[in-house]
This record gives sequence, structure tokens and C-alpha cells, in this order.
Amino acid sequence: MTILPVIMAGGRGTRFWPLSRKSRPKQFLPIISDRTMIEETVERLLPLIPLKNVFTISNREQARVIKSFLPRLPRSNVLIEPRAKNTAPSLILATARIYLQDPEAVVVALPADHLIQDVPRFLKKLEAGARAAEQHDSLITFGIPPTFPSTGYGYIHYSDKNPLKVGDERFWRVLKFKEKPSLEQAQKFLTEGRHSWNSGMFLWKADVFRRKLEQYALDFYPYWEKMIAALKADDWAGLVSIFDDIPSLSIDYALMEKAKGVLVTEGDFGWSDVGAWSSLLEIWPRDEAGNTARGESLFVDSRNCLVYNPGKLTAVVGLKDVFVVETKDALLVCHKDEDQKVKTLIETLAQKGRKEYL
Amino acid sequence: MTILPVIMAGGRGTRFWPLSRKSRPKQFLPIISDRTMIEETVERLLPLIPLKNVFTISNREQARVIKSFLPRLPRSNVLIEPRAKNTAPSLILATARIYLQDPEAVVVALPADHLIQDVPRFLKKLEAGARAAEQHDSLITFGIPPTFPSTGYGYIHYSDKNPLKVGDERFWRVLKFKEKPSLEQAQKFLTEGRHSWNSGMFLWKADVFRRKLEQYALDFYPYWEKMIAALKADDWAGLVSIFDDIPSLSIDYALMEKAKGVLVTEGDFGWSDVGAWSSLLEIWPRDEAGNTARGESLFVDSRNCLVYNPGKLTAVVGLKDVFVVETKDALLVCHKDEDQKVKTLIETLAQKGRKEYL
Repeated sequence: MTILPVIMAGGRGTRFWPLSRKSRPKQFLPIISDRTMIEETVERLLPLIPLKNVFTISNREQARVIKSFLPRLPRSNVLIEPRAKNTAPSLILATARIYLQDPEAVVVALPADHLIQDVPRFLKKLEAGARAAEQHDSLITFGIPPTFPSTGYGYIHYSDKNPLKVGDERFWRVLKFKEKPSLEQAQKFLTEGRHSWNSGMFLWKADVFRRKLEQYALDFYPYWEKMIAALKADDWAGLVSIFDDIPSLSIDYALMEKAKGVLVTEGDFGWSDVGAWSSLLEIWPRDEAGNTARGESLFVDSRNCLVYNPGKLTAVVGLKDVFVVETKDALLVCHKDEDQKVKTLIETLAQKGRKEYL
Repeated sequence: MTILPVIMAGGRGTRFWPLSRKSRPKQFLPIISDRTMIEETVERLLPLIPLKNVFTISNREQARVIKSFLPRLPRSNVLIEPRAKNTAPSLILATARIYLQDPEAVVVALPADHLIQDVPRFLKKLEAGARAAEQHDSLITFGIPPTFPSTGYGYIHYSDKNPLKVGDERFWRVLKFKEKPSLEQAQKFLTEGRHSWNSGMFLWKADVFRRKLEQYALDFYPYWEKMIAALKADDWAGLVSIFDDIPSLSIDYALMEKAKGVLVTEGDFGWSDVGAWSSLLEIWPRDEAGNTARGESLFVDSRNCLVYNPGKLTAVVGLKDVFVVETKDALLVCHKDEDQKVKTLIETLAQKGRKEYL
């Protein structure tokens, strides 16, 4: 069984502003450790998968950055999507590319900017997932056991009857993919059980993906065929024109929620999508007062604060639930429960034409 | 009548950390305008008093800074106190120096780091005060009409019977200098009336000061005589040894509250001692949400916040009553009601031996 991970590295990551910028989105930042998230994403695979089997997909500019961070990754594995059109076009292209190489290979679609704390468990699950994808000709997804009624994730509703087993791991039949719910709905999901968070990680055999696309994603299958032809002919201009036409849609909408026989297994490996600065309050080690910092910091009568300011002494006095993020050209001071408003801020800067801050 | 202002520039101003440092206390910072406070203090005098009549007193290091900010101030007017021993030794030295030049001159003792918003009114009051000092052989002080029951200032209790008049200005007899009160006491002072804040600004004729010192400050008068002798002999080592011995005390304790016949007049000229960052919330122009900034700043859903960060874009999101102060090597984020804790911070840094931040 050949497992070929495709690391999706096309994200923008505006919520880590001012550290993240258009030219330096989250996956290229050393947020969790002193290495970038994409480096961590690749390196955690290496006990199981040789580097030569790892693919990335992103735009051309990001591909250059990827090559600089991962110089030993084969250049031909750094795939380029001609246009940013969400995950369906991107994963169709990556799977088509792999299909031409080995239609029996199992593709593992992985976001470049997620945290996984229990790597041995993750690798065990990944291997079992790949085996399930192969044995059952299924689309597989990792569902994260929800720890609170989040309204920020999609949910996967599954049956707890007769799971398929691969070794010790169980794979449940997916009943329905559900969009980001209201708080009320989310609370109901948690009470009901059998709902997990959609992690955006998927596994499939390349030829199974092709068949499922043909069967369930009629809007997209013609693009698959065109991509196969363009890839065979090494026709970049052709790919560009395909990406001009193809609808911008997530793989969840385009295929996963339409296909039959999708399986979900528990993603019980310390996952976090590290969605915003506030999520680091749960990830970075904290002091007794709940404060956490990168960079020399002094907290006086402060609780539950986060500082990112590697270059400078930061003093926080008399504050609660505040994060402070400083970069060379910008400083953000934000209440932890208001970090979704950082997007408003970036829009304001865009409207003002302050491209240097975007 | 010769008026000779003495600008007291020896203060430390730790409460404007991290902008203020040992080497750059508040009086040398451009906090109110784009000029330093000491420049403003000197320049507001010039409509009434020629620069050649303006003196400063500070330590030697500060004297160098003063000369750099005020290059046209006569070098011999930049007085140096050999040791920092509070305001009594400092003003005895300055007055002795002036006494040797002109015992009839009126000395005006002015802190280098106060804000005065109505300069014409201030100058009118200063002229009247100097005339009162001359005509009545009195020590004169400006009392600030209290606007709230502050526990941060000393109070001057005065009689409202039979004020002395100089032109349109009235001068009341001081009954008692009172130390910084409790909140309860301060509230009582405001209810009673006839209490004003002690601004730390004083006027006296040089020879009257000498006589009052001889009469009411027996501990200090011998030092006056020694200083006169040392100044006459141009004996710096002598001055140093006098300052080694002289008690460290404020002029308020040493003389003002002991002397008879002290007069107070209303300092109704938009005074502020600009005691800490939070006081700038009352001084800098604010936007509709009550926010104020030096440096490009964006406030999103924030109220009553202050930013000092001239070099960098600062975004404040979802916060209230917070100030943010950034310098080249340090960043302070502080709740406005907790700014007295900045002193704790500086003590912590001192204990840690982080001299670069002091």
C-alpha cells in the first residue's frame, strides 16, 4: 500500500494578523514551536512515509516558500494550483496528478496548518485509515471528538451501528455532513452524541476518488477528465483555463456530503486547527495566572493573557483576557473574545489601501 | 522688579515608563506636544521673562540634556545640584545663587514637567504673584482649584477672610499645608472649600527667602550660609560636602508649612502635573469613543484607550480603559486604573538587574 499525503498549503490565515500576512500565512509561521507549521506537518509524517511520497499543493508564490522551508522535498511534488478555488478543485488536481502516477495509491489530504499533539496516535490512525480506504473502497474522514459546542466547525453525523474494523480502529458510516451550526444546534449535537467535528482531513484511493467523483459529483467530474488530459500533455495554459472555469467549492460540499459510503473514524490525537490567537491560550504552556508568552514578558496582576513579542520586553499590567501581538511594523492588542474582529480590521486596512499591512 | 524663574528639572518620572527612563525622565519627553516638557516650560515664560533670566536646576547629567534642548540658555544659568536631595536643598542652592546676583530679585520655582493650558492667564498670575512676593515680603504659592477629591496631591488650607489684592488678583493667607489625604479627608476638603491642591510652584524674593529660612527653618539655615560661602568661593567640593550632609526634604516640609505669612493665589490656568499615562486621557484630544493616540492607530469596538506608538501601526480591538505604550525596546499594556503598578514593574526590573530598562 502506497500512502501519498497531499498537504494543502494554500490558506490565507488572516486571523493571525499582524504576524500572518498575505505573503506569510499561518502555515509558514512558527506558531507552535520554533519551526513553521508546514514543516511540522511534514515532519510528523516521516516515521511512516518517506519524504519522496509527500506532496504539497498551493499557489505559485507559496510553492516558492514551501521549497525554501522543505528543500529536500522533490520539486515535482510541489504542486501548483493556477487559481485559488477552495479545496475541491485543489484536491481534484492533486488526486489526478497522483492517479497518473499510481491509481492504487491512497491519497491523504492534510491541511498544512493544524496541530497534532499525539503524533504516534495520529500515525496509527492514518495507517488504519489508509487501509480502510483501500479495503472498503471508501472516502474516509477523521472526525474530531467535540469538547465543547463549537459554532466554528462543520459536524459529521454518523451511525454508531456496526462499525467497520481495521485492526483496533473502528470506522463508522457517515449519515450527514452538517454545516457550522448555531450554538443551539451545536449543543444538541453534543447531547445527541454521534457528531464529531469535521477536521478537513480525508483519505481515498486515487481511483476510488475518480469513481466517486464520476458517480456523485457530476458538476466536477468533467474537470477531472480535463485535468487528467492537461497533466498528461503537460499543458499549464490548459490547467489555468480549467481553473478559470471550475466552481469554487470545498471538497466537503462538492463530494463528501454527496457521496455514499463515506466512513469516519475518531481523530483522537490531540488535534487543533489553531484557528486564531486565542486558540494558543489552550496550546502554549501557561503560568499559574493563566498567562502565556513568546518573548520576555512581565505580567503584573494580569490573568489569562497572551503575548507574542519575541523581540522586545512586554509588560502587561492589570489586564485579563487580552492578547498582545507585535511584529516589526504593527502591534495588535485585542480582547480574546473579540479576535474575530481582526478580520474587520484587515478589511479596513484594505479599504484604506494600506497594502503593506495585508 | 526682576523675576528669575528656577525650573526644577531633577525629577525621575518613572510613571511614564517605558518612555521615561533614568536617562530620559518626563521633563525631557515630548508628551504634550512635539516639544519636550522642559522646552514648553521655558517657552511659555518668554513673553514675560527674557531667556537670560531663566535658571534650571538638576543633576549634572540632566544639565547636559537641558543644554542640548535649550542651547540659547546661558550656561551659567544651568545650575547643578551635587546630590538629589529633594526640593529644599535644591531650592536653597538656587535661591542662594540668585541672592548673590540680586537679593531683591523674585525667584519663581517651577517644576519642569507640568502642563499649563492657559498661558496668558498663567503669566498674568505669575506677574501678580511676583509683585505680591515683593510688596508683602511673603512666600507665595499657587493653589490649584481641586476638581475631584484627589488623594495624589497635598492640599493648602487657606482663610477666605480679607485677601490681599494685587491688581485684580487675590492672595489668601495660608492656614496649613496638608499632606496627601485619605479619600475621606479629600472629600471633606472639597465639601469645606478653602482647600486647594499644592502645585509645587512657589515665588519669593531672594532676601525674604533667606530671612524666612533663618526664622522658620533652623535645620536648614546653616546650609544656606555654607552654600553662600561655597558659591562665593566657587568651591564645588564644598558644595558636594554640603549636599552630603543636608537632609533630604521637600521645600513644603522644610519651610512652607513652618513659615508664617505664606500666601496662596488661585492657579486657575489649566494646570496638570501630567502625573502618569492615564492623565493624558484628559489632555490629548480624544475621538468620539474616547480613544486617543500618538502614532497611527485603529480602534475597533474600543473605548477610552490611549496609544503611544509613533513608529508603528497599532490596532486595539474590543478593549476599554487600556493604554498601550511602545518604545524601541519595551512595550507596556496596562489598565488605566492600574498605572500606579508600573512602579512595581520597574522595581521588579531593578531586582532582576535589567538596568537597560530602567
